[in-house]
Amino acid sequence: MMDRRQFLSTAAVAAAGAMAPLPAFAAAPKLGTQAPGFFRFTIGDFEITALHDGSVAGEIDDKRIPNVKFDDVVKHMESQYIPVKPFVNQFNTMVVNTGAKLVLIDAGFANNGAPTTGKLAANLAAAGIDAKSIDTVLVSHFHPDHINGLRNKEGELVYGGAEHVVPAGDFAHFMSEEKMNAVPEAARGAFKTAQRVFAPNAKDLRQAEWGKEWAPGITAIQSDGHTPGHTSFVVSSGNKTLLVVGDACNDPRIFAKNPEWHLGFDLDKPKAVETRKKLLDMASADRMQVTFYHAAFPATGFVSKTATGYDWYPMSYTDLM
Amino acid sequence: MMDRRQFLSTAAVAAAGAMAPLPAFAAAPKLGTQAPGFFRFTIGDFEITALHDGSVAGEIDDKRIPNVKFDDVVKHMESQYIPVKPFVNQFNTMVVNTGAKLVLIDAGFANNGAPTTGKLAANLAAAGIDAKSIDTVLVSHFHPDHINGLRNKEGELVYGGAEHVVPAGDFAHFMSEEKMNAVPEAARGAFKTAQRVFAPNAKDLRQAEWGKEWAPGITAIQSDGHTPGHTSFVVSSGNKTLLVVGDACNDPRIFAKNPEWHLGFDLDKPKAVETRKKLLDMASADRMQVTFYHAAFPATGFVSKTATGYDWYPMSYTDLM
Repeated sequence: MMDRRQFLSTAAVAAAGAMAPLPAFAAAPKLGTQAPGFFRFTIGDFEITALHDGSVAGEIDDKRIPNVKFDDVVKHMESQYIPVKPFVNQFNTMVVNTGAKLVLIDAGFANNGAPTTGKLAANLAAAGIDAKSIDTVLVSHFHPDHINGLRNKEGELVYGGAEHVVPAGDFAHFMSEEKMNAVPEAARGAFKTAQRVFAPNAKDLRQAEWGKEWAPGITAIQSDGHTPGHTSFVVSSGNKTLLVVGDACNDPRIFAKNPEWHLGFDLDKPKAVETRKKLLDMASADRMQVTFYHAAFPATGFVSKTATGYDWYPMSYTDLM
Repeated sequence: MMDRRQFLSTAAVAAAGAMAPLPAFAAAPKLGTQAPGFFRFTIGDFEITALHDGSVAGEIDDKRIPNVKFDDVVKHMESQYIPVKPFVNQFNTMVVNTGAKLVLIDAGFANNGAPTTGKLAANLAAAGIDAKSIDTVLVSHFHPDHINGLRNKEGELVYGGAEHVVPAGDFAHFMSEEKMNAVPEAARGAFKTAQRVFAPNAKDLRQAEWGKEWAPGITAIQSDGHTPGHTSFVVSSGNKTLLVVGDACNDPRIFAKNPEWHLGFDLDKPKAVETRKKLLDMASADRMQVTFYHAAFPATGFVSKTATGYDWYPMSYTDLM
């Protein structure tokens, strides 16, 4: 089919000779593209850039939320207008510019995942952030969708100029051959990924503890359950705070609404429920802005406690900065 | 302050001579930019591009929702995490590519509004849509934030190649000097804007009626109250439909939640309430995707009827197309 621009310019050439009648337009092509996945907001003097690493469209089954009847899960999702088939799992990272430091929190997949992931590099570039200028990388936990992006398939560190700060609890767990051998073969992927990503630079990692500042203005808080060392972060500037929940609560439309639902991936499910409620209670009571790694991009907003869980108020796009 | 790239390249030059220690990074600049305001989705075989024209940050007072105590309005907004000060009013248009035609629905401000508006041109370009290739413009109603964008400040038609289809009811109302003279001076702005925009090409406009297809697959439906000729649209392709609500319901977090609240700008307030409920009932019952001109971008999602109104489920960003 003739492209519209060609068609019009052909028509213009024709019209130069004689006033030809205006041609009927050719059909415009469908474009199928989306705007880059970055979203800027501020917390006090800090500038935050939410960054989309991509998503995976797949299936969910009754193993995803093992303590709830699958029919009830589907019914809930339909009530929230969340597509069930395919089920889309999103991966959303962020960069905090504290003024002094550029801090990346979690890293997606780089080129180690599905082709619909690994978009952090392109979205960083679209956002005007040079990956080489990242000063500090903070890791919430050692699951593959959070750490694979730190080292590409070719074995190179993606943020080679940055200090890498990781939860001591997850380092102890996922870097242990003994712990790996204690779980079934099918559950060893996360251990192997942790080895792949961190073994080559293990001595350069800063293993850090809850309750400390891991970067200026960014304090690690205990949020285990999803993994033994899972860490959330409170980002503070001026009198503003942002709670970076990470995976202590997966998609808030499902797990903030139903905080007692177990996520199949939570290693200690009762502890995960306790942690989730502790964090969401705090965010609701203090009206803190929150981010969730698996919320729909830009994956930031607010939660408000209800009789049965927490409602989710996603922050919406604006270009007023 | 020395730019980080300069700093690093200076350091690299130094390091070429001797292995100098890695310099401390300079602070990264804040960027303050946002991704372009376009969002693609599909309805059957149609490709839709939601497009942001911008927003205005201002004040609201007790005239905005005259039948509700202002304190209750503020309390509701706070409960929904909607900023009250400043209050942000967004303007969101859309293009429907039906395959045969490129159809723009409503047009924002072009360069006739506040500097934080008139971004449709830039967002169309970012979305890969040539403004000159728009075949058809549909107008929901004649308020300035919907029609100003059809003719720029210099007096030129912005979509000169397109057929302009307008609601006959609003043409009759807003192009009438008699009707204008019947309202107080302060209420004449919309009449004057309609004159500015449409008088020069009045004979070329297609005045159209409710219940008809105004473009292939796009049917106009009665939704008066906001203005006498206010028109909503049902966009249909295959077995999918999109309800383009326009201004029959302003920000759904406020007016879908509270459909009986009067918007100050609604010319016939009881009729506007009746229309709003009729449209939202239909969308809820049929689980139709909806768009609202004044919802937060991308201004599309779903509504679900509750005991007191309708909950709003915004569609979220994905780059899986």
